[in-house]
Amino acid sequence: MPAPHRSPAPDASLAHRRTDAVLAVRDADGAPLAHADVVVEQVRPALALGNIGFDLVGFANGEEEADTGSPFGGAAPSRGAHLAELFLGLYDTATLPFYWGGFEPVRGRPDTARLQRTARWLADRGVRLKGHPLVWHTLTADWLRDLPTDEVEEAQRARIRREVGDFAGLVDAWDAINEVVIMPVFANEERTNGITRLCRERGRIATVRMAFEEARGANPRATLLLNDFDMSTAYECLVEGVLEAGVQVDALGLQSHMHQGYWGEERTLEVLDRFARFGLPIHMTESTLLSGDLMPPEVEDLNDFRPASWPSTPEGEERQADELVRHYRTLASHPAVEAITYWGLTDEGAWLGAPVGLVRADGTTKPSYDALRDLVRGEWWLPPTTLRTDGEGRVGVAGHLGDYRLTHRGAGADLALAEAGATTVEVALPR
Amino acid sequence: MPAPHRSPAPDASLAHRRTDAVLAVRDADGAPLAHADVVVEQVRPALALGNIGFDLVGFANGEEEADTGSPFGGAAPSRGAHLAELFLGLYDTATLPFYWGGFEPVRGRPDTARLQRTARWLADRGVRLKGHPLVWHTLTADWLRDLPTDEVEEAQRARIRREVGDFAGLVDAWDAINEVVIMPVFANEERTNGITRLCRERGRIATVRMAFEEARGANPRATLLLNDFDMSTAYECLVEGVLEAGVQVDALGLQSHMHQGYWGEERTLEVLDRFARFGLPIHMTESTLLSGDLMPPEVEDLNDFRPASWPSTPEGEERQADELVRHYRTLASHPAVEAITYWGLTDEGAWLGAPVGLVRADGTTKPSYDALRDLVRGEWWLPPTTLRTDGEGRVGVAGHLGDYRLTHRGAGADLALAEAGATTVEVALPR
Repeated sequence: MPAPHRSPAPDASLAHRRTDAVLAVRDADGAPLAHADVVVEQVRPALALGNIGFDLVGFANGEEEADTGSPFGGAAPSRGAHLAELFLGLYDTATLPFYWGGFEPVRGRPDTARLQRTARWLADRGVRLKGHPLVWHTLTADWLRDLPTDEVEEAQRARIRREVGDFAGLVDAWDAINEVVIMPVFANEERTNGITRLCRERGRIATVRMAFEEARGANPRATLLLNDFDMSTAYECLVEGVLEAGVQVDALGLQSHMHQGYWGEERTLEVLDRFARFGLPIHMTESTLLSGDLMPPEVEDLNDFRPASWPSTPEGEERQADELVRHYRTLASHPAVEAITYWGLTDEGAWLGAPVGLVRADGTTKPSYDALRDLVRGEWWLPPTTLRTDGEGRVGVAGHLGDYRLTHRGAGADLALAEAGATTVEVALPR
Repeated sequence: MPAPHRSPAPDASLAHRRTDAVLAVRDADGAPLAHADVVVEQVRPALALGNIGFDLVGFANGEEEADTGSPFGGAAPSRGAHLAELFLGLYDTATLPFYWGGFEPVRGRPDTARLQRTARWLADRGVRLKGHPLVWHTLTADWLRDLPTDEVEEAQRARIRREVGDFAGLVDAWDAINEVVIMPVFANEERTNGITRLCRERGRIATVRMAFEEARGANPRATLLLNDFDMSTAYECLVEGVLEAGVQVDALGLQSHMHQGYWGEERTLEVLDRFARFGLPIHMTESTLLSGDLMPPEVEDLNDFRPASWPSTPEGEERQADELVRHYRTLASHPAVEAITYWGLTDEGAWLGAPVGLVRADGTTKPSYDALRDLVRGEWWLPPTTLRTDGEGRVGVAGHLGDYRLTHRGAGADLALAEAGATTVEVALPR
């Protein structure tokens, strides 16, 4: 049975994301660290802020050629060092590409080692990782088309077990299945792909169950998402059915590719409200806002619109910066939102050639990059700050929930400020 | 678990609806009725063909005033005898109105006796009956608004038990719940109605389960439908979820109010194909085709369009007749379709004032009435026909599946021809 269908109320003050903590600091001998200067700094926010890490795969693997196998994230590896620096200056979470067709174009030859190197490179820099997606009809392996449906299912199950198992401990969050609402009726191709056929014959819920069952079995600690672009009642109905069928979904993924215009605060909250009713955390998995002309409203499948040139414009960049900050504030105001992932750092090689990045194709940052940085590493962030403890070793820290570090004369301790409002946290410094 | 997700193929020849039966006729002593003339006639088709019986409620109750309590079926009782004759000349099935708000406007004073008289009047004339609907947010009882949600649920459950119990044996088919896709997000009113609130708090599937559970308990023999106007993937997702949750749905109800234009054969078959995948019988519960100007395509909620006058036109009437016959042929070609109910016999008091009827407001028939009659009581029908048995009392009958009657010298026997293709049926004449 799903949780009660009531949505928590949004709060623009973000009180639900802020702490007023008292740190009770003790020295290496266990005595209160009284009347001492300590430096406190935020390391990572509790609200995961991410982008796709697709552009960093070639760079992390020391490659020289851009990857043309994916429609998303096609920046040249030579830009990798610069893009990585920009990435780490803003984000703490990355989505990595596991599109089956690109990951295993020839059956039995998966791209595991290359993705593992990328994942390790990012994890070593404190970045949380999510794999996208384990099951999807688009960009799935072409060789599935020739298999009977039972074998498609077996291959799909084995592929889930393999990827989730191979990356456990490194990638512990997965879009278990993507865009199930249209999966069985997807008809944008001449020959039906194997996954659409599987889903049509088995049913949506059976296909979702398969994805979660295999992923859960391969990594019981993983956070597993159901992800969709369909924000209509269709996705609501699907979610209800999946939950009633007893599938354990850890978070709901909502896409928001706004190529046809910013949703605005009202629609964003309306969507969040409808999907928060299920009592599950919400991950905004794929957000985009253009810094150029918008896609005409009559386009139904975004993939159908491919202008020869789609430049970023000065007015578009100002608008993007404004809308981006408004969107992040709106999303953060809703207690159900636990992650916000933007879909594209740079315009170079971006999906559909659209100017969605916070970085121009030439590597310079747009106003949106600076605006978002001012918000998430400024207003929502505690930089290294010197504070003085009282006679009992206590020091107050007000800030956004997340991971912090406290240091005193070269000795440092990590701490998590995970509870909103007034709280006390013990901090023990090492020798 | 739902049935396999495969749809049976349509067949325009209607072979799946026709029988080539041999009747083996015996006389009252059990001897073969050899070399005898018998009259065989069709009494009722297996494919239920219906319309709303709302206009007949006042007439069957000997009333003089038209019922203004419902937006559907507001013809004057004085026209009842004429409309009843036209009804019985075309249809074998009727949908009766159980809108809670009209049926029990004051709590504790349901309109049971009046509807029972109507149901009996129709049943006495061989008409099969369906009640519509047991649960719906629109036209629900206003007094639910003031009750806490738990009491709304209890009242709704009690109302289902009462109506289904009171009418068991007379009304054995029910739209158990109507338009669930939008039920929890329905917002076309100033103060949220009790059923939308219930569905929003409990969830769609829990509300569907409630409806079927109570109705099934009150009449285990009833045919219970899930009914919706939403033909999108949203309804597909809802159906899947309901079936996966173990709710026993006897038939899927699909509405097709075509105020904005005839669907055409292709779309009709596409819709049938998508919903037939679940392996359940399909009832086309609410079909309409206009004999006047179409509603503009940009209207989203049909209820929002109310022209001052909406006349039936000569061109519109020709178009309606053509489309109606095409639509019935298309629906009959699909093996999953078990019932086709049109939504309005006469334009008088029709929903939205639209010219949907097969009869004009002045009581004269439109071309559509005659065209449909030629089809369902002509091409698809066996009128009383004299046939001669062979030396073994056998006689061949080719016709559409349904109930038949065979008579010989004043003695008659009812028989059901229920199996498509070649078959043999024993017929025993009484004394």
